[in-house]
Amino acid sequence: MAGHMTPEEFRRYGKQVVDWIADYQEKVESYPVQSQVRPGEVLASLPAGPPEEGEGFEAVLADLDRVVMPGITHWQHPSFFAYFPANASGPAILGELLSAGLGVQGMLWATSPACTELETRMLDWLAELLGLPARFRSDGDGGGVIQDSASDAVLIALLAALHRRDGGAAAREGITRRHTLYVSSQTHSSLEKAARVTGIGAANVRVVDVDPDTLAMDPAHLDALITEDIAAGAVPVLACATVGTTSTTAVDPVREIGEVCSRHGVWLHVDAAYAGVAAVCPEFRWVNDGLDGHVDSYATNPHKWLLTNFDCTALWVADRAPLVGALSILPEYLRNRASASGEVIDYRDWQISLGRRFRALKLWAVIRWYGAEGLRAHIRSGVRLAAELASRIGADPGFALLEHHPFGLVCFRPRWEGLPDDEADAATLRVMERLNASGDLYLTHTRVGGRVLLRMAIGAPGTGDAHVEAAWRRIREETAREGRPAGQ
Amino acid sequence: MAGHMTPEEFRRYGKQVVDWIADYQEKVESYPVQSQVRPGEVLASLPAGPPEEGEGFEAVLADLDRVVMPGITHWQHPSFFAYFPANASGPAILGELLSAGLGVQGMLWATSPACTELETRMLDWLAELLGLPARFRSDGDGGGVIQDSASDAVLIALLAALHRRDGGAAAREGITRRHTLYVSSQTHSSLEKAARVTGIGAANVRVVDVDPDTLAMDPAHLDALITEDIAAGAVPVLACATVGTTSTTAVDPVREIGEVCSRHGVWLHVDAAYAGVAAVCPEFRWVNDGLDGHVDSYATNPHKWLLTNFDCTALWVADRAPLVGALSILPEYLRNRASASGEVIDYRDWQISLGRRFRALKLWAVIRWYGAEGLRAHIRSGVRLAAELASRIGADPGFALLEHHPFGLVCFRPRWEGLPDDEADAATLRVMERLNASGDLYLTHTRVGGRVLLRMAIGAPGTGDAHVEAAWRRIREETAREGRPAGQ
Ligand SMILES: Cc1ncc(COP(=O)(O)O)c(C=O)c1O
Ligand SMILES: Cc1ncc(COP(=O)(O)O)c(C=O)c1O
Repeated sequence: MAGHMTPEEFRRYGKQVVDWIADYQEKVESYPVQSQVRPGEVLASLPAGPPEEGEGFEAVLADLDRVVMPGITHWQHPSFFAYFPANASGPAILGELLSAGLGVQGMLWATSPACTELETRMLDWLAELLGLPARFRSDGDGGGVIQDSASDAVLIALLAALHRRDGGAAAREGITRRHTLYVSSQTHSSLEKAARVTGIGAANVRVVDVDPDTLAMDPAHLDALITEDIAAGAVPVLACATVGTTSTTAVDPVREIGEVCSRHGVWLHVDAAYAGVAAVCPEFRWVNDGLDGHVDSYATNPHKWLLTNFDCTALWVADRAPLVGALSILPEYLRNRASASGEVIDYRDWQISLGRRFRALKLWAVIRWYGAEGLRAHIRSGVRLAAELASRIGADPGFALLEHHPFGLVCFRPRWEGLPDDEADAATLRVMERLNASGDLYLTHTRVGGRVLLRMAIGAPGTGDAHVEAAWRRIREETAREGRPAGQ
Repeated sequence: MAGHMTPEEFRRYGKQVVDWIADYQEKVESYPVQSQVRPGEVLASLPAGPPEEGEGFEAVLADLDRVVMPGITHWQHPSFFAYFPANASGPAILGELLSAGLGVQGMLWATSPACTELETRMLDWLAELLGLPARFRSDGDGGGVIQDSASDAVLIALLAALHRRDGGAAAREGITRRHTLYVSSQTHSSLEKAARVTGIGAANVRVVDVDPDTLAMDPAHLDALITEDIAAGAVPVLACATVGTTSTTAVDPVREIGEVCSRHGVWLHVDAAYAGVAAVCPEFRWVNDGLDGHVDSYATNPHKWLLTNFDCTALWVADRAPLVGALSILPEYLRNRASASGEVIDYRDWQISLGRRFRALKLWAVIRWYGAEGLRAHIRSGVRLAAELASRIGADPGFALLEHHPFGLVCFRPRWEGLPDDEADAATLRVMERLNASGDLYLTHTRVGGRVLLRMAIGAPGTGDAHVEAAWRRIREETAREGRPAGQ
């Protein structure tokens, strides 16, 4: 009968797993970026039922290569340009390993003080690295917390905003009036999800106009919508401004939006999930413009572009009182002297879940391994590669480039002159699907002004000039194969 | 300037971390169970700001021992009896490491098919291991998914229930009528949190009576409350039955509750966060009683008592349509051929967050390492130790024992004869605080019928007879020191 894995066995298998991962890092480029399996293929190669008797760990490692790897789309491949990056890094992986090895659960300060206090300090460090305003730091009324994802962060912000607005009435009595939220057509879909989850309703998510060129939210229209909604008896709760939208990295005018929100008592959440971490570099500090104004919460994802494995979203609030007010519940079995003293933070009151992992360890390992300099170098490398790609695309008459590309994302399309828009878009999508199916690189698409654009997001730690050049060559090749690129 | 950690460096430091964890496993008993630090102590020993230049990984490991370890409350200590266990195990730690090493993000099937399909298969395996009814398996209308926590699971169940009730009206238009939920005084606080989060409101959580002896929910009172609420124009949405309550592992009559729910079209969620996994043993299959009746969703936590590091809650639904209906949103940049085909599962539509880790790997590693037999042996060991402790307590005239202790939790109190109840309870709490402060063991407390009981939850992989005996000796010692134990 299989017993617990002994420390000696853990040493042996643990080192095998470390070697397996190092080998994977060395050969990641040899895999097709996108998994080539068909639906059901991985499922079919797994036994239908669990084993009655335990097996050795070697069996798991063997099946990892045989069964799992063919079904992996390699987010750490240097030619993964789809979505935004989900950077892994050696120090982050080891931080996650340490967290799993310690196996502590940090719901309360008392259940592992270091889990809470290291997190508080790391969020302060990160605030300093990014140059965030002092009021987001933990030594005043504000503070930071790690959330699973930017989607959770906005849900949390919304609950805090509701609580500030009504002193907890909706949480007590339920939503009884029409509440409204403000986004643009470019805001991430997590806002709509949050509106559904909170019982505010997707129909009460008001879509503010964007500038047709910059795709940035129009503060005057926001003002008009809020005014209109108030007049109609609704309760405006939260607006979400985005710094670096998912589709094209557009940047909303945070300061102006904050002024409008402040006039109407509306909570402003700034979603900088992808682009916010660029502020580690002085030349990108402009992404913080307006954060010193009327901003109530701010989120950015070290798990996207800052070398910290998913999950690690950093959420800061300027005032933690409404957040804790919205989420704190104290049953008898969680009462303890430290919580009662008011001297400590219990992060369970800053999130939906009760339990929580020790995720600050990976952030600590990453920041210490890289230092501010190393983090800057990583961001700069992605931005430089993107700028060079953009200048090649811009110089090619067969392609149309979206001029705005301040970070690592470049959006563009083949011109397909002579084709009606819908046929041209279909051709662009066919090119993308063939590229992705080839396994050579992985792209996604978006729509701007009704037209399909390809999105190429650069920012994996391993991506270098050669990968971007090869991608650009393959894109031109498949475009030519499709038949009618302009100017060729 | 610090660059990325190379695969060679990763091999070196990774093995150091593996050894560090194995050393920790070997010496975990040498630490005080509960951290002895005071609020702010860990914070004060961390530099105020981040390093400008990168440091070696050795520095992190050194500070781990110096700064972090004093602030750790050791959940894996064999004398950790507080809360419910949060079992870690070698295979689970290595599964988590593999997941971090691969660094894939499984929001969509297409973003790593193996991440989705291994999860589907593991939840089917687990359903088989636990003997759950066939309709929770993925080959019919139902299916399972990993959630962060049981708290998330109930929130998800509630959103699905709302969607089934109104076809998505509340998600679209917002909550406009009074909706009601049904719990007992023993239900976990996550239900109240879910009521707040969803805009249903804590005041609309109706508390059903419990049997004063068994603390089990009274189905007749549930029926009466639902009938009353319907008559008053409310919309009853969900009832939560618990198998193994947090306070005392009470067991609600799931079948009878299901019959009531079915009559009124109310969604029944069964929360078996802690106790559900006991069903791996035939002799504990009774925890599934009633699941073959009218149960809509069921959750249990491998991350508590089934050797799988936090986070890993298993949630099954009998019908996945309302779940996906409640949570699916499809922006352009997430559209892809596989999703459009309808042949695949996109688990982002089964959760709040968009992104997700590859958590099925740790479940796979655990089930294969232990096999069904090894998992059973683990559960049986905890139950046996608890039963032996209970018989010692029951035989001691100085203590009152809660007779119900089918799993690993034993609740009891010193009798303190002659003291009024409130003074007796204060004395019990003082005993607990001294025990916890001693570092020898870690207990929590609850209240039953107004009286304070100590909770001793047995179930860490390393806990053996000696640890339970030592704990019982220390409990009697501190009780004697407090002064007035009955019969001594
Ligand atoms: C602007 C923006 N917000 C939110 C998100 C969601 O991130 P997460 O997966 O952390 O929820 C994304 C993901 O790409 C994003 O680009
Ligand atoms: C019955 C019950 N439900 C839910 C929970 C919450 O578990 P989680 O931390 O996974 O949210 C617990 C935790 O002890 C529990 O005992």
